[in-house]
Amino acid sequence: MASLDIATRELENPIDLAEYLFRRLHEVGIRAVHGVPGDYNLAALDYLPKCGLDWVGNCNELNAGYAADGYARVNGMGALITTFGVGELSALNAIAGAYSEFVPIVHIVGQPTTKSQKDGMLLHHTLGNGDFNVFTKMSEGISCYVAQLNDPHYAATYIDSAIRECWIRSRPVYVTLPTDMIYAKVNGDRLKTPIDLSPPENDPEKEKYVVDVVLKYLQGAKNPVILVDACAIRHRALEEVRDLVEASGLPTFVAPMGKGAVNETHKNFGGVYAGSGSNTGVREVVESSDLILSIGAIKSDFNTAGFTYRIGQLNTIDFHSNFVRVRYSEYPDINMKGVLRKVVQKMGKLNVTPTPQITNKLPAEEQSSSNQAITHSWLWPIVGQWLKENDVVITETGTANFGIWDTRFPANVTAISQVLWGSIGYSMGSCQGAALAAKEQNNRRTILFIGDGSIQLTVQELSTILRNKLSPIVFVICNEGYTIERYIHGWEAPYNDIQPWEFANLPKVFGADAGYKGYRIKTRDELQKLFADQDFCTADALRLVELYMPRDDAPAGLKSTAEAAAARNA
Amino acid sequence: MASLDIATRELENPIDLAEYLFRRLHEVGIRAVHGVPGDYNLAALDYLPKCGLDWVGNCNELNAGYAADGYARVNGMGALITTFGVGELSALNAIAGAYSEFVPIVHIVGQPTTKSQKDGMLLHHTLGNGDFNVFTKMSEGISCYVAQLNDPHYAATYIDSAIRECWIRSRPVYVTLPTDMIYAKVNGDRLKTPIDLSPPENDPEKEKYVVDVVLKYLQGAKNPVILVDACAIRHRALEEVRDLVEASGLPTFVAPMGKGAVNETHKNFGGVYAGSGSNTGVREVVESSDLILSIGAIKSDFNTAGFTYRIGQLNTIDFHSNFVRVRYSEYPDINMKGVLRKVVQKMGKLNVTPTPQITNKLPAEEQSSSNQAITHSWLWPIVGQWLKENDVVITETGTANFGIWDTRFPANVTAISQVLWGSIGYSMGSCQGAALAAKEQNNRRTILFIGDGSIQLTVQELSTILRNKLSPIVFVICNEGYTIERYIHGWEAPYNDIQPWEFANLPKVFGADAGYKGYRIKTRDELQKLFADQDFCTADALRLVELYMPRDDAPAGLKSTAEAAAARNA
Repeated sequence: MASLDIATRELENPIDLAEYLFRRLHEVGIRAVHGVPGDYNLAALDYLPKCGLDWVGNCNELNAGYAADGYARVNGMGALITTFGVGELSALNAIAGAYSEFVPIVHIVGQPTTKSQKDGMLLHHTLGNGDFNVFTKMSEGISCYVAQLNDPHYAATYIDSAIRECWIRSRPVYVTLPTDMIYAKVNGDRLKTPIDLSPPENDPEKEKYVVDVVLKYLQGAKNPVILVDACAIRHRALEEVRDLVEASGLPTFVAPMGKGAVNETHKNFGGVYAGSGSNTGVREVVESSDLILSIGAIKSDFNTAGFTYRIGQLNTIDFHSNFVRVRYSEYPDINMKGVLRKVVQKMGKLNVTPTPQITNKLPAEEQSSSNQAITHSWLWPIVGQWLKENDVVITETGTANFGIWDTRFPANVTAISQVLWGSIGYSMGSCQGAALAAKEQNNRRTILFIGDGSIQLTVQELSTILRNKLSPIVFVICNEGYTIERYIHGWEAPYNDIQPWEFANLPKVFGADAGYKGYRIKTRDELQKLFADQDFCTADALRLVELYMPRDDAPAGLKSTAEAAAARNA
Repeated sequence: MASLDIATRELENPIDLAEYLFRRLHEVGIRAVHGVPGDYNLAALDYLPKCGLDWVGNCNELNAGYAADGYARVNGMGALITTFGVGELSALNAIAGAYSEFVPIVHIVGQPTTKSQKDGMLLHHTLGNGDFNVFTKMSEGISCYVAQLNDPHYAATYIDSAIRECWIRSRPVYVTLPTDMIYAKVNGDRLKTPIDLSPPENDPEKEKYVVDVVLKYLQGAKNPVILVDACAIRHRALEEVRDLVEASGLPTFVAPMGKGAVNETHKNFGGVYAGSGSNTGVREVVESSDLILSIGAIKSDFNTAGFTYRIGQLNTIDFHSNFVRVRYSEYPDINMKGVLRKVVQKMGKLNVTPTPQITNKLPAEEQSSSNQAITHSWLWPIVGQWLKENDVVITETGTANFGIWDTRFPANVTAISQVLWGSIGYSMGSCQGAALAAKEQNNRRTILFIGDGSIQLTVQELSTILRNKLSPIVFVICNEGYTIERYIHGWEAPYNDIQPWEFANLPKVFGADAGYKGYRIKTRDELQKLFADQDFCTADALRLVELYMPRDDAPAGLKSTAEAAAARNA
């Protein structure tokens, strides 16, 4: 009630609500806002420049949502502005993906005035039935907080809560901004106190108890291993993980969604564990371990090569953002970060077994091959040799996000893919947002691998990349259609075919200037030459590579996962 | 219960549920299904060819939804297939638009197996929380019927009900098809009885009562007029309207959403009534009339030039699909079709006043102008002179769907635009679906007017047009951005600018063959020459015209509507 009291007495430092909202976004590290203009949000957009926020101006809202997601994965948080009905609904798939994969996005929806809503006016962008709540209801199931800013007395409090929830729970929040509320006055002095983004402290006694239980099993284990997954990244436990890996010396693995969570050049790093889709030698070590420290796991079908984990719960300690589970004992309402920190401090010397050696060396059969076709088993280790520290690497749902399992990253690589939600086309939008955030981070490189089918869904974000002068390197895998689907069903079915496009010429019609370069790569030698080309590797403009690969080839991980999916669908 | 009894006893003529569903779609006139393949719908797609249905294969689901909408507006009904979660959510904006504007689309969503759903498996395309109902709930508010096909005993009945409701209520229905249900056996003999698509009969006594009331006022009126709007089209009352116009001889007008509902070459046709945005001379006649027969009205802001109707309810009889209102007397649960038929039979001779003369003559100031710039006041009458009988004309929300108010159509033109829902980019997807349906109707021409901003949202459907060998004529109005938004807010704001594209070269990178031709038109003479070019007018391949128009020009109807919207937003 304190906030309400402040808000209702005369404001000493009144500012417009839109300015308040945008200053708060800036405060939590957002520097660019994605979205599409629409008549119910236009006046709000006027406030962006004075709050230090750039307007990206995407081609459509779904792509803008994907871009906000990519931006958030690199930057920490993202923001999206759409317009009532038509705009927000187009973005729902992107928001649902962010909800599913724990990506914090503040989704701001410009609405008709509070009066128009109260009067149930028959406005454009409505269902024509006077119901102005139906779209909010649609977003409720895919948002961790809903803030309807229709009362100046509460609006600032709601904004602060929305941003805090977005950050803490690492999921999208939905904020409505009616056009008349843009100018509503709120207490500007609130901005002097930053929003508290710290996670709730663990209860010390409870934390000590859990730490002791963990230590008991850890210190007694003969061959413990560490397995890091998505939620370690999304719930920001990477420092704790790094210290655990370093201090324990234990063999460390990542699930596919955990790619990028640990330094893959570290001597303790042993590769990707994904059940039957694991890197060579990994499955044996993980599944014979008597204690798996599983950090932030999301055991979805595509993250486990079709539920092929063979790990017993009796051999597992699960660390999560809001609970810890030791064997079958559950400890709710406790954050892994505090627990991991204490475990590192107290664990002492553990039983350490050797870590499988993992590199970007080509598999034996490829080393001596004279094959010039760019196959997946050849490509992904080669990509690993080419990548540099601090790169941002995005892989589309399809051959690419399975292939990347076989790429050993340099240090500090950020990996982005949508393994759980798996929305085709996501990565093109995400690439725009990621590239923007990467540019803000001292010009990190952004590299995208997308398919010739998937890019067709969201292709126009190449235009947004050009408009915002971003310089990602985009590889379009040209293999004649929806390969992942062929492996699931319809090997020769025409519905898995696509219209052939001239991908490398797309940026030209989207208004690229002379700085743009496109490439058509059909052989291994050509790709090696391209990877050695310094202009290509360090350009400050868009690069797009048509990368021709055999139609029927796929990474091993995809093959086994698709087989399992097909069996489950039948 | 009869259907259940049939379903549970041994089936004499069992067929797979997917086949049953698709044969029903074929029965109601659908010949092509729009959508995007996804692993939860692939196996269903195998059944399309044997049921006489073509698979369109759109580039993304939103566009596919728009296309199904355009197809339905020309064909009578449309169908869309998406996949669970990622696919269906991308289409929601299109479905909401169809709900808003009364367009019947059967939206079929491929789902994980009933067992996977029951077990709450952690599958891709889920929110990771085991909730498989959240997406269905999101569609409920924008569908007039939901059929969850998870029990073979009821599935066929649900399908029939869904298709009937879709048709009768002229709105989208949502049908879930889990992958295991594709092969569930249902009673094929049901197909021998077609689905009953006839609207519920009016109660004869009630109908007679309403007819008598209508006649009393109509026969007593001094200068009655007819005003036809969207729901006359969407609820299929065009024959009754035609007979009324013919038999009554009354001056007849259309609201913007009613464009195409009546023969605009008929001597009784007086033009567009849209309050302050009406054609010259129309407002005076309509607003001085002592009785307006208003048929299928949707009095939304953009359909009334910002709520500028000046018609008293005391002078109005409203005819709708489910009620009639005479002055302030309401008659619920009665369909206008039966009432209008009887009114025509019984009305006798009415007081007929002259109809304002309406043509495609240029306004006086344009006739003598030496201006070569293509302005809106010049363009739209010229388009009217060029159009042919049976054309399908699509106009995007923006300058085009206001400009078309000034175009007098030849007979039997179908007009498509989304005046109420107003989703930017709609018309490009809609054009693909409309062009396909038009091709099925003895090769009618399809003509699209879209803006350089709006085409950027959905541009890839040019590729789908090429893939399906369709031949619409596409005009891209090149006027440097979101003009309709400039008129509402942000005249010089960079958020209303766009990335400049080479529109006429887009089809080439999307794989057009030599049959494609692109044009760049900057003067009136060039456009007149193009309109006289028979190859252009009758080509059997895509034609795309970059039509350069002044950045700050707009049709008069847009200007006044935008002014009203801006005032309401403030």
